[in-house]
Amino acid sequence: MKPSSSTSELFGPLFTDPDVEAEISDQAWVRAMLDFERALAIVQARAGLVTEDAARMVVTAIDVGHYDPAALGEGALTSGTPVVPLVRAIGAHVTAEGRSAVHNGATSQDVLDTAMSLVAHRALGPLLAGLRGVADECERLARQHRGTLITGRTLGQHALPTTFGLKCAGWLVAVDEVVDALERVRTDRLAVQFGGAVGTLAAVADPGLTDQLAAELGLAAPLVPWHTDRTRIAELAGALGAAAGVLAKVAQDVVLLAQTEVAEVAEGEGGTSSTMPHKHNPVRAVLVAAGAKRVPGLVSTVLAAMAQEHERAVGAWHSEWQSVTELLRLVGGAAHGLCELLSRLRVDAERMRRNLELTGGLLMAERVAGRLAARVGRAEAQELVAEVCRSAALSGRPLRAALLADLRIDLSEAEIDEALDPAGYTGSAGEFVDRALAAHRGRAGR
Amino acid sequence: MKPSSSTSELFGPLFTDPDVEAEISDQAWVRAMLDFERALAIVQARAGLVTEDAARMVVTAIDVGHYDPAALGEGALTSGTPVVPLVRAIGAHVTAEGRSAVHNGATSQDVLDTAMSLVAHRALGPLLAGLRGVADECERLARQHRGTLITGRTLGQHALPTTFGLKCAGWLVAVDEVVDALERVRTDRLAVQFGGAVGTLAAVADPGLTDQLAAELGLAAPLVPWHTDRTRIAELAGALGAAAGVLAKVAQDVVLLAQTEVAEVAEGEGGTSSTMPHKHNPVRAVLVAAGAKRVPGLVSTVLAAMAQEHERAVGAWHSEWQSVTELLRLVGGAAHGLCELLSRLRVDAERMRRNLELTGGLLMAERVAGRLAARVGRAEAQELVAEVCRSAALSGRPLRAALLADLRIDLSEAEIDEALDPAGYTGSAGEFVDRALAAHRGRAGR
Amino acid sequence: MKPSSSTSELFGPLFTDPDVEAEISDQAWVRAMLDFERALAIVQARAGLVTEDAARMVVTAIDVGHYDPAALGEGALTSGTPVVPLVRAIGAHVTAEGRSAVHNGATSQDVLDTAMSLVAHRALGPLLAGLRGVADECERLARQHRGTLITGRTLGQHALPTTFGLKCAGWLVAVDEVVDALERVRTDRLAVQFGGAVGTLAAVADPGLTDQLAAELGLAAPLVPWHTDRTRIAELAGALGAAAGVLAKVAQDVVLLAQTEVAEVAEGEGGTSSTMPHKHNPVRAVLVAAGAKRVPGLVSTVLAAMAQEHERAVGAWHSEWQSVTELLRLVGGAAHGLCELLSRLRVDAERMRRNLELTGGLLMAERVAGRLAARVGRAEAQELVAEVCRSAALSGRPLRAALLADLRIDLSEAEIDEALDPAGYTGSAGEFVDRALAAHRGRAGR
Amino acid sequence: MKPSSSTSELFGPLFTDPDVEAEISDQAWVRAMLDFERALAIVQARAGLVTEDAARMVVTAIDVGHYDPAALGEGALTSGTPVVPLVRAIGAHVTAEGRSAVHNGATSQDVLDTAMSLVAHRALGPLLAGLRGVADECERLARQHRGTLITGRTLGQHALPTTFGLKCAGWLVAVDEVVDALERVRTDRLAVQFGGAVGTLAAVADPGLTDQLAAELGLAAPLVPWHTDRTRIAELAGALGAAAGVLAKVAQDVVLLAQTEVAEVAEGEGGTSSTMPHKHNPVRAVLVAAGAKRVPGLVSTVLAAMAQEHERAVGAWHSEWQSVTELLRLVGGAAHGLCELLSRLRVDAERMRRNLELTGGLLMAERVAGRLAARVGRAEAQELVAEVCRSAALSGRPLRAALLADLRIDLSEAEIDEALDPAGYTGSAGEFVDRALAAHRGRAGR
Repeated sequence: MKPSSSTSELFGPLFTDPDVEAEISDQAWVRAMLDFERALAIVQARAGLVTEDAARMVVTAIDVGHYDPAALGEGALTSGTPVVPLVRAIGAHVTAEGRSAVHNGATSQDVLDTAMSLVAHRALGPLLAGLRGVADECERLARQHRGTLITGRTLGQHALPTTFGLKCAGWLVAVDEVVDALERVRTDRLAVQFGGAVGTLAAVADPGLTDQLAAELGLAAPLVPWHTDRTRIAELAGALGAAAGVLAKVAQDVVLLAQTEVAEVAEGEGGTSSTMPHKHNPVRAVLVAAGAKRVPGLVSTVLAAMAQEHERAVGAWHSEWQSVTELLRLVGGAAHGLCELLSRLRVDAERMRRNLELTGGLLMAERVAGRLAARVGRAEAQELVAEVCRSAALSGRPLRAALLADLRIDLSEAEIDEALDPAGYTGSAGEFVDRALAAHRGRAGR
Repeated sequence: MKPSSSTSELFGPLFTDPDVEAEISDQAWVRAMLDFERALAIVQARAGLVTEDAARMVVTAIDVGHYDPAALGEGALTSGTPVVPLVRAIGAHVTAEGRSAVHNGATSQDVLDTAMSLVAHRALGPLLAGLRGVADECERLARQHRGTLITGRTLGQHALPTTFGLKCAGWLVAVDEVVDALERVRTDRLAVQFGGAVGTLAAVADPGLTDQLAAELGLAAPLVPWHTDRTRIAELAGALGAAAGVLAKVAQDVVLLAQTEVAEVAEGEGGTSSTMPHKHNPVRAVLVAAGAKRVPGLVSTVLAAMAQEHERAVGAWHSEWQSVTELLRLVGGAAHGLCELLSRLRVDAERMRRNLELTGGLLMAERVAGRLAARVGRAEAQELVAEVCRSAALSGRPLRAALLADLRIDLSEAEIDEALDPAGYTGSAGEFVDRALAAHRGRAGR
Repeated sequence: MKPSSSTSELFGPLFTDPDVEAEISDQAWVRAMLDFERALAIVQARAGLVTEDAARMVVTAIDVGHYDPAALGEGALTSGTPVVPLVRAIGAHVTAEGRSAVHNGATSQDVLDTAMSLVAHRALGPLLAGLRGVADECERLARQHRGTLITGRTLGQHALPTTFGLKCAGWLVAVDEVVDALERVRTDRLAVQFGGAVGTLAAVADPGLTDQLAAELGLAAPLVPWHTDRTRIAELAGALGAAAGVLAKVAQDVVLLAQTEVAEVAEGEGGTSSTMPHKHNPVRAVLVAAGAKRVPGLVSTVLAAMAQEHERAVGAWHSEWQSVTELLRLVGGAAHGLCELLSRLRVDAERMRRNLELTGGLLMAERVAGRLAARVGRAEAQELVAEVCRSAALSGRPLRAALLADLRIDLSEAEIDEALDPAGYTGSAGEFVDRALAAHRGRAGR
Repeated sequence: MKPSSSTSELFGPLFTDPDVEAEISDQAWVRAMLDFERALAIVQARAGLVTEDAARMVVTAIDVGHYDPAALGEGALTSGTPVVPLVRAIGAHVTAEGRSAVHNGATSQDVLDTAMSLVAHRALGPLLAGLRGVADECERLARQHRGTLITGRTLGQHALPTTFGLKCAGWLVAVDEVVDALERVRTDRLAVQFGGAVGTLAAVADPGLTDQLAAELGLAAPLVPWHTDRTRIAELAGALGAAAGVLAKVAQDVVLLAQTEVAEVAEGEGGTSSTMPHKHNPVRAVLVAAGAKRVPGLVSTVLAAMAQEHERAVGAWHSEWQSVTELLRLVGGAAHGLCELLSRLRVDAERMRRNLELTGGLLMAERVAGRLAARVGRAEAQELVAEVCRSAALSGRPLRAALLADLRIDLSEAEIDEALDPAGYTGSAGEFVDRALAAHRGRAGR
């Protein structure tokens, strides 16, 4: 059965990854809550706290029962969470003996915090796959375009030549960094929660159970219950926030490079316009940017919710469930969209080369000054070249002609041509690309 | 048919108002988009831009057609919005002549911006009803408890006596203020959008159509198209943000007053705990607080999205749809929840009175000092009383006894008793309550 | 004496307006606090609550005394606000009789809330002047360029022609809107605060004093004390947030138009680069954008701080002072910077006209299809034109040639030329400009 | 000379740590910028890119020159950063030969990004010391109060007994977690920046220089220049955001425990009130909470600024400098304040014990039900006990008496007394405390 969407069916598809969506749906949350209750019965039976029969009944009831998110949601209002109705629903499938093994010693927050960890852990699977896919596309582009000249742009202005490969290598390094951060959070920080009403395990008094629950569920085991220590959730949110920022950066570069006046890249399947048949909109990039824009506010919500009162918060905790779900959805969707985009990106190396000429050589001024500096000193060289540039810009004359015509420029025609060749002024771009590629490949072996 | 939820079925019910939900559902969005297309055909037929027959076909197609949000959502990816599939779906219900009256001269953003205005306008109906309900409850409580003494608390400490009526009057004034702001936005600022691809109305060239559309749809008419002037949306978000803050303030006061140690109020139907049968949780207040906590981040998202490029934004616009929907949902839900809460709030006036005594009279120190000041000057009086307070606090002796025992306190026993009576030291509380009530009643006549 | 800066001297000048800065400095805050204390003494003397002599002493002490922000700041730690040290400092300048008229019946929050209102009221003077300056520049540009053709761009792509005048008119309307909102907040919502410790005016019991204080200080008079009703502050923050968004939008358009590849505008005094002598950076626009980016987070901080406890908040209130100050600084600075920028903006109408041709006529496709629709129906016309556009785009042939060569296009050469003329396809752009100009001029008369 | 404050002198002292302040002042930023320029000259001399004489001149000029932040700030407007005036100022102290070694091959962002890393690295010194101080205080309190009974409170209601030691251990674990995160960011992620205008090192073409710069400055060496990959800054901001949340949580617990009705803790030096001599305000906790509340908005600003254009951002980068500075200030200030607070916290164990009795034994209901469950099954036991609790609560009778009087309760008086003893129902609290203490001690050895 298709899981009922927990986002808009009208707008949601624009901002999601179906594989992530499957792990953050209402059904996925319910599944994760049930996983906690199942594991709890199992480890408590092992420890002799409940009978094996009771535990078996619970496991069966969880496996075969039907737990409808909508019904649980409706039943949640009285206690403020869907846990009470869920526990009641499980209990309805078992005998009184079975009920002794349901939710024993646990509090609602144990269930929901563990479920949130599980949901995040599982959603991070496809989400990280999406990010790694983005990285692999960046790696491919960086490799293919290691030597493809492109204009480096600062503050929207042509600055110096660089390579499209280095641009992609920069994206690659950033994506690899956020993958690292999310993997660390996933492995080390997404933890089981088990503390009972006030975090003392009053009813079962056995911290070892927590470690067993963690092993059973594939989550980290916390030192102590973390009901009102939300560092783990904050770290998850922070890492997702950084990931969104990186994806937004790449999407924005694509949008800027795809502008009609620049036209150095285009989406493989650009969007259609309802009224302008000729348009080739960078739709994917737009949607990645749009999804990412909604992330920083959600991160601030999670951070502002960290000040949780005493042993259970008065609302701050309750504000996390959908915020974290939405963070996973948006970052997953942006990664997925960007991966698709990059895999079909059309790169116009010829246009990149042509755009380099738009300033008539002015963006090579630094290099000309550098060459001249060897003869007249750096300060004078810079001043002289700046003056020639200004007059060239005013007259519209190419810099080459202006340099040749100016007697104060003590460089031969060959030297000038060499200095004006952008291909010769990409510095360590190639080496930087190689560093990024090597580091990325090194990760595969881990 | 129950509208498909555009939020979680598991968590959503905790944070929503069903009446608001009905106006922000996917179906409501589609309905609003269709309303735009219908009105467009009608006013253009009136203006002779399309034939009456064509317009009639469009109106019929919109009225009888089935437009499934999920299908539109799936079809949205290619162009980045659900408008292209919607226009295509309408077109599929009419002849070629009919199609000439579909979406004529409009751009996707015309449809979605107008739809967003309509959705907000409609959702603000029940949302404002919820807020007015909160105000009415505050008014009732302020009236009933005009003279009910309660401890005024500053920085969590007992400060001076006040009345529960004044506390509720303060809530009332705040709610009335945000109602005012939202009504202004609703009436003056939620506007129709109609500008065509770049806001010039290139294809129809008749700004009068915009005014007619506005009249047809019950929205404000803008001076010029506002595709990338998002002031209206920002004002909506800002007013919703302020409303959330006010609701959160009241909820928080309820939570604090309901603390076991304070116990001055309780929810009529307190929440149950999964493990603690004796608990009487302020569940509604907790959920109101939780919903409100998610609002400031969303407002910042809408504000950060105002920097929209040229004639159509690259993602910022796309980030608004669900942000605005969620703002309406959360504020509507919080208003609804708080209204329910206050309507059943149990007020323990007796306990309020008793808590006033917890400091053994110390919170009347200011007044004693005031009385004494008439005889020894303010500075000396304050110093003297402070000293007596300190020693009373240390010894645990009531302030009355300490004052009587201290020879430097030049006040008679009757004067001391009078000074220590909290009922006599509520200043203008009553008058402030009356002001708030009168202002609130005055609004009814508008 | 130059007021000590309450922002960085290194970075602050990039983001501030000196005239706003003078109204939000530490000295300005102290001055506003003193204004409250002075007015309090005066109105209380009038009401006979303190002696005229005492009040006169206080007024003199305030006028001639030296109140050093740094000393007050150092003394603030004990009580958590600078009010206690300020009151003590005033008291040190008067006799015991004088001291009876200092801060009588007031609480620290009365002083700081009123001071915040005053600071905001005063800073909004130059801030609104800055915004009005921006509006006037937009008005001038809209008027001058009412007929200047420019490419309308959506999602970064050429869409349809529009006019630079309409672009500026759109900016103008947005700026006028935020001016309206800020003026309303300034006049109606920035209020005096006077309630005493818990908002009851326990010690003076005369709400009329509040009205007199308001008159004395030129602020609005509240219905009741608003110590923990922060709607006024939220509305101020919200309006500043919208203003920042509008300024950011204009700055971003300038940045995009100034890109080397677009080059349709340039800053009159573009920034220099430390290494690239030829660059002409849109430095002002960059700084306006940078300042505006810091605003949404601050607004969310103010909104999240609305849930203030009981009669005085536990930190939320304290978080407002510098947040509000910074909001005023950043919006004032952005308005100031943008005003300077626009007043010297170099507009290259010739380049705008040339860029319109970059797609070889493709952006006129909608119009060609419109012309053709009269003969073959809209759907067929759109399809046909789209096909011709695609093949023209692929071959690099101008659309004009492709249309002439395609026998299915039933339009004469003259009709094609007319349809391809962008000047004939700006729809209601001129009328929209006129509307915006008229509305702006209408404001001057208010 | 006292560094000129880059924050308000009036409000700043409430929210800062003087030791952190010294590392984030304008002077500290200038010092860090100079450190970059010095190191650049040194490593380039080593590599033979500049002469040793030139480098020596630069080093001397940097060491002896006076670089006034205010002058640099005033000079920054033209280029948008203070780097151009700084480079000019250094150049003014050397000969033309010297100038060849100033800023060679670097771009403004190289200087400012490296300076931001250095400023953060240095400020994290005292900031982490503050956090470790907080942790040590938590450790002390957890140890001292390992067995001190206190009421566990959930949703503001008494829930079950716990120990004050466990509460402090929970704080300890959270603080240790954010220390870990900040240490990791400090060591691994705060990196040198060196890429030249577009990140290619065009002018020097030697990536090895970056590694040498990193070694020289004690920062991490990046794989490639990170001009528009802001992951590092986002991670710093995220970790600071989490730290603020943890500090806010502790402060809030203190505020709640210090409430007049609860009175279980008090600040050693409570704040004075301007009008209420008897008050004992938790001023430090209030200020910690206030500072922390301003952090999430700043983090969202930094995250939203990650989408940086091409090779140099159009404003997003410029928005970081003061945001990061303010984050360091606020978190440093909150850590410092909380450390002071906890070091003098007065703990009233007696009052904690007494408050446990406020519900007349009701908070032990779970345990009574547990005991009874052994005889009648869990479901029936819970129902029975809930019923007795309800009637006890209604009548005001202690639970003990109600249990003894109810014949259905099959427990002896001794069993009832044992079940009602809170000291026997703290579960694994002690063990959890020991875990936290051991882990904290284990850190010292690292």
